[in-house]
Amino acid sequence: MNQLNYFFNPQGVAIIGASSNPVKLSYGVVKNLKEHGYQGPIYPVNPKGGEILGQTVYTSISEVPDPVELAVIMVFAPLVPQVMEECGQRGIKNVIVVTGGFKETGPEGAQLELSLKDIAKKHNMRMIGPNCVGVMDTHLPLDTTFITYMPDAGHIAFVSHSGAICGGTTDWAESVGVGYSRIASLGNQVDVDIADGIRMMQDDENTHVISIYAEGLPDGRRFVEAASEVYRKKPIVMLKAGLTAAGTRAVASHTGALAGSGRAYYAACQRAGVLIVDSLQEQNDLAMALANQSLPQGNRVVLITNAGGPAALAADELDKQGLKLANLSAETQARLEEVTPRGTQLGNPVDMLGGPRAEMYSAALEVVLSDPDVDMAMAIFVPQAITPVAEVAEHITQAAQNTGKPIVACMVGGASIFEATKYLNKNGVPFYQDPNRASRALAGLLAYKQLRDRPDLTPTPVPDVDKATAHKVLQATWKQKGAGFLDAETAAQVAAAYGIHIPFSGIATNVEEALQLAGKAGFPIAMKLIAPGVVHKADVGGIALNIQSAEEVRETFSKMVAGNEDRQVMIQQMAPRGQEVILGAQQDAQFGPLLMFGMGGIYVEVLKDVAFRLAPLCEVDAREMIAETAAGKIMAGVRGQTPGDIAAAVETLRRVGQLVHDFPCISELDINPLIVGEDGKGAWAVDVRIAITQEPQI
Amino acid sequence: MNQLNYFFNPQGVAIIGASSNPVKLSYGVVKNLKEHGYQGPIYPVNPKGGEILGQTVYTSISEVPDPVELAVIMVFAPLVPQVMEECGQRGIKNVIVVTGGFKETGPEGAQLELSLKDIAKKHNMRMIGPNCVGVMDTHLPLDTTFITYMPDAGHIAFVSHSGAICGGTTDWAESVGVGYSRIASLGNQVDVDIADGIRMMQDDENTHVISIYAEGLPDGRRFVEAASEVYRKKPIVMLKAGLTAAGTRAVASHTGALAGSGRAYYAACQRAGVLIVDSLQEQNDLAMALANQSLPQGNRVVLITNAGGPAALAADELDKQGLKLANLSAETQARLEEVTPRGTQLGNPVDMLGGPRAEMYSAALEVVLSDPDVDMAMAIFVPQAITPVAEVAEHITQAAQNTGKPIVACMVGGASIFEATKYLNKNGVPFYQDPNRASRALAGLLAYKQLRDRPDLTPTPVPDVDKATAHKVLQATWKQKGAGFLDAETAAQVAAAYGIHIPFSGIATNVEEALQLAGKAGFPIAMKLIAPGVVHKADVGGIALNIQSAEEVRETFSKMVAGNEDRQVMIQQMAPRGQEVILGAQQDAQFGPLLMFGMGGIYVEVLKDVAFRLAPLCEVDAREMIAETAAGKIMAGVRGQTPGDIAAAVETLRRVGQLVHDFPCISELDINPLIVGEDGKGAWAVDVRIAITQEPQI
Repeated sequence: MNQLNYFFNPQGVAIIGASSNPVKLSYGVVKNLKEHGYQGPIYPVNPKGGEILGQTVYTSISEVPDPVELAVIMVFAPLVPQVMEECGQRGIKNVIVVTGGFKETGPEGAQLELSLKDIAKKHNMRMIGPNCVGVMDTHLPLDTTFITYMPDAGHIAFVSHSGAICGGTTDWAESVGVGYSRIASLGNQVDVDIADGIRMMQDDENTHVISIYAEGLPDGRRFVEAASEVYRKKPIVMLKAGLTAAGTRAVASHTGALAGSGRAYYAACQRAGVLIVDSLQEQNDLAMALANQSLPQGNRVVLITNAGGPAALAADELDKQGLKLANLSAETQARLEEVTPRGTQLGNPVDMLGGPRAEMYSAALEVVLSDPDVDMAMAIFVPQAITPVAEVAEHITQAAQNTGKPIVACMVGGASIFEATKYLNKNGVPFYQDPNRASRALAGLLAYKQLRDRPDLTPTPVPDVDKATAHKVLQATWKQKGAGFLDAETAAQVAAAYGIHIPFSGIATNVEEALQLAGKAGFPIAMKLIAPGVVHKADVGGIALNIQSAEEVRETFSKMVAGNEDRQVMIQQMAPRGQEVILGAQQDAQFGPLLMFGMGGIYVEVLKDVAFRLAPLCEVDAREMIAETAAGKIMAGVRGQTPGDIAAAVETLRRVGQLVHDFPCISELDINPLIVGEDGKGAWAVDVRIAITQEPQI
Repeated sequence: MNQLNYFFNPQGVAIIGASSNPVKLSYGVVKNLKEHGYQGPIYPVNPKGGEILGQTVYTSISEVPDPVELAVIMVFAPLVPQVMEECGQRGIKNVIVVTGGFKETGPEGAQLELSLKDIAKKHNMRMIGPNCVGVMDTHLPLDTTFITYMPDAGHIAFVSHSGAICGGTTDWAESVGVGYSRIASLGNQVDVDIADGIRMMQDDENTHVISIYAEGLPDGRRFVEAASEVYRKKPIVMLKAGLTAAGTRAVASHTGALAGSGRAYYAACQRAGVLIVDSLQEQNDLAMALANQSLPQGNRVVLITNAGGPAALAADELDKQGLKLANLSAETQARLEEVTPRGTQLGNPVDMLGGPRAEMYSAALEVVLSDPDVDMAMAIFVPQAITPVAEVAEHITQAAQNTGKPIVACMVGGASIFEATKYLNKNGVPFYQDPNRASRALAGLLAYKQLRDRPDLTPTPVPDVDKATAHKVLQATWKQKGAGFLDAETAAQVAAAYGIHIPFSGIATNVEEALQLAGKAGFPIAMKLIAPGVVHKADVGGIALNIQSAEEVRETFSKMVAGNEDRQVMIQQMAPRGQEVILGAQQDAQFGPLLMFGMGGIYVEVLKDVAFRLAPLCEVDAREMIAETAAGKIMAGVRGQTPGDIAAAVETLRRVGQLVHDFPCISELDINPLIVGEDGKGAWAVDVRIAITQEPQI
């Protein structure tokens, strides 16, 4: 058995620090274990001994009899290391440290926390926490938390950084009848982290969807690896707090979690196949649908309703989400006519007017879902005096159980639909109070279907890169100058070693050298001033383009150098005309190298037309990254424009990705501009800037 | 008294077609009038006579004694005209026609419907409906509907096209304790429409916010006029179904309402000061805040919480919405420290950790809200075992009642917070189950504050337009060619009459004329082929730019004409270099002339960088319209670029707006490109296309 499973299926649970005082949280844990139905032995441990809820209290973990595989530790923080040591000696498989007072309180706590990890490792125990509320498995059942409600047995696994969010979520689930398979509150993630959280759920047959709430991701690459392996098997829905500057500050003051930049996180989720949500509501809405419904084969939706307004709102939202109203065949409409009230709008939305009989919902749903040109359905109901709400819920459920296509339910109301809400959710029909939310849930099902079916995005190595040369150049620069920007020629050398297409260039210290280099490059050429201390060359007349003759070379050279002996001039072959784009890379603290691609020139600032990816990346991914941007769309050939050399841009992206992946010492790399010529004319890295912050390793 | 007020405050209500059968809707109306507390006389009317719920049933409206001011009509559709006639004769002030079976059933119903309008007019009655559920005034109280729940007396007025949405909304309101002032279901809007709906609510002192659900807007300009007059006094929150193609189809099949284009609708709301929402949930969320909270003076928010996660989610959403976390002064933090638990994060978010005492919520809120650098607050609570939820709700309410600054409440949960939800809403603290929703509600308060305080956008007439000349040219064209596109020269003449800056041009039928015109224009010039049947001139070499000499004029002329006698060539002064933009106008069926402005060239299609406004428009509005676009941002001078002549672009927009406003016969107008030169160099309408579809009127 995978060791992580001992968290959810242990033979015997010890609660160390259990109190007999009913207002204490540790009493609550014993109570929940007992009352929420755990069938294995429950061992409260407390030096005081005695009895809690009829269970003998052992005075130390060493006295607890077999079998005992899991310990829930709730003692005062400074005592936790000693207790964990004893657990290890007793042969406990896994521990959950509920106690707070570690990293979140400052450096001393952080130090104490690290010692826990060492103890766990020494005894081959896995540890959840500290500063968490524990776990639930609703199917076993097992509830090691002190949370009031354990949800119904269902199919959503919830992995949460925060214990409070677990409490809030189970409280919500209770009110609407949504079921969960497993819940794990990870707390400070000293040992078991979000990546482990994903792996804990992947083989659980009761889990159909993995829903994650995260504040920080201590090891971003590990998360990407775990999610990448799991997402085609089970959808992963993730909500992350701290994606904006303000949110990061809020998270940081909360648990000291490294929140990370939003851009890198989004790029990581794209690579890892994770469905991103922005709010708890959206997270629950989507998880409910993925937990209980099949996946649609296409984007064609039917709306069955007793009110036009909510259907129109749903139609608007479906349209925004890229879904569409199915066209119902004449045959389907004829069959619908037989099972719906007189006057029913037989087109789509199918509007059964104010007061259809409840059984018309199942009948109409069954008719439309048997139409091969329908992929999914939404049943909409507004309560009124005529149709019993409970019966409508039953008939929607019946239709859902008789089809292989997804159905969601929307009832616009509150007081009258409370029981119907629970009935639908408990019976696996995701319920939404708002048509727009129901529409987004259907869109989410399709989004996951497309994600699951997308091509493999595993990065493949880029051929023909000269890593040794790049290393040599970087190493020499490091030795000479240490951290900082490489000069232009050196940066170009590094890029060229990785097969990035750099216009021919050389540096001239006098006018004769300039003429010689111009001869080699062939006119037209560009000339760029290299002068210590001048960063923005353009501002001081240090860039001259499209120079056509030896005469011009002479003139320009003398103007640029202007008598300064320490100045040199770069002579560069001119790139062809083409789309000016910008290609950048930087190291993200959590996710490693991150690539950026977008429109260059003045547009980059105004349009913010940029796409991000983790580096390195495969060809499919690079192509999609480019296609996401307006620059990519223009290069694809808009309004009869000649298409750009997208293949060359893809290759450049891949080569830059490989370079920054191979050399983490490169903290920043910019090609600005990269000129993408017409198809077949290549992509020209006209200006390459590289910064290094550490010694290059190979 | 404004006649519309008889709908909400009538002396005596007759229910014509009232049934004594408790399953009938008309019985429900009598029941609601009685049981929901209407204090005036209630008169059921039915030829059968008898008694309903202890009320005498009159056999006709003519028999009903005084006072009776409002009639609710629920008879079979074909009988409605006769009944309305009788109401008129009886001196009824206003009627509500609940009966359906009119426009929504086809042309015959539409015909019948129009007759109702005539009868109402003849007797000076106002009419709501047909095909509606009636009205409520919770303060009087009055409930003429058969809907189950009448909401608590509150401050939201709800105007709904759809009766079902009224039912769903009141059902929802009942479950969460949200109060309303008035509710009106307008149905087919034959007489009283959305514009009247706004006016009905504007003087009601119990109404603090007007919330509208619309499917179609029969008279868009009337709506804009009403909303423009009211929005600074009371916020208007509007949800409109049928903004996408799919949604329009859904609405059309529902009530036959003209749904209109989303673009025109958004432009109309911008002009009218209407807050746009996209879903029922968002509508309720925002209306709840506006109904009960004051407006913030700035964008600085404090979060008071007992859990870090939801606060971080709120912070992320606030950031997205342009709000920020207030910086709490050292003094405020010191005062907070005294009233919060040990270990509380005193920065913002103020995290009181897991189990603060309930009274710490009021104490902490009072401290932060007395800080002058705080504009509003959100209280966040996740239920746990320690703090009683009800007491937290009471303390949040207490703080809200003791401050002039807005407060919203967010509790993450469900089962445990049901009563707290109702308590908070009933006491005027808007409650949200999700931190993101609470954040957006605060953002909505600020958005309304800014809207209320914005400059006047009333269009002002544009000076120096030669309407007579424009009319003469259009008239001549209409007489000659009828509907269709004007030729280039004619279009330029019309534009020039309105002071739109057109490069000098003339049409040459032979090379001598061409040379003469070139002399007048001054080199460089542009030459454009005018040939019958050639629409896309560029595709056939029919456009030549930057012609510098007489020699080139000769050559180009002969190439373009190529021996065809029916061809002419336009000789045009070249515009200066500048930003290429596109400026367009079209007539919207509902809202009249609509202006578009955005980036020109290949970018218009890829970037969809366009802004829309109703025409005509004032200078402030035109300037803002331009500023919304990327083209506008570039022209404002990005990264040291020379700023463009925005004043000239503003003027061109205004002149085009005036032109299409003055001449509704112009169905389409495009200036593509408009070249906006550097500041002071003007905006040049290089190519003007105008289409007319009817005879010009003056």
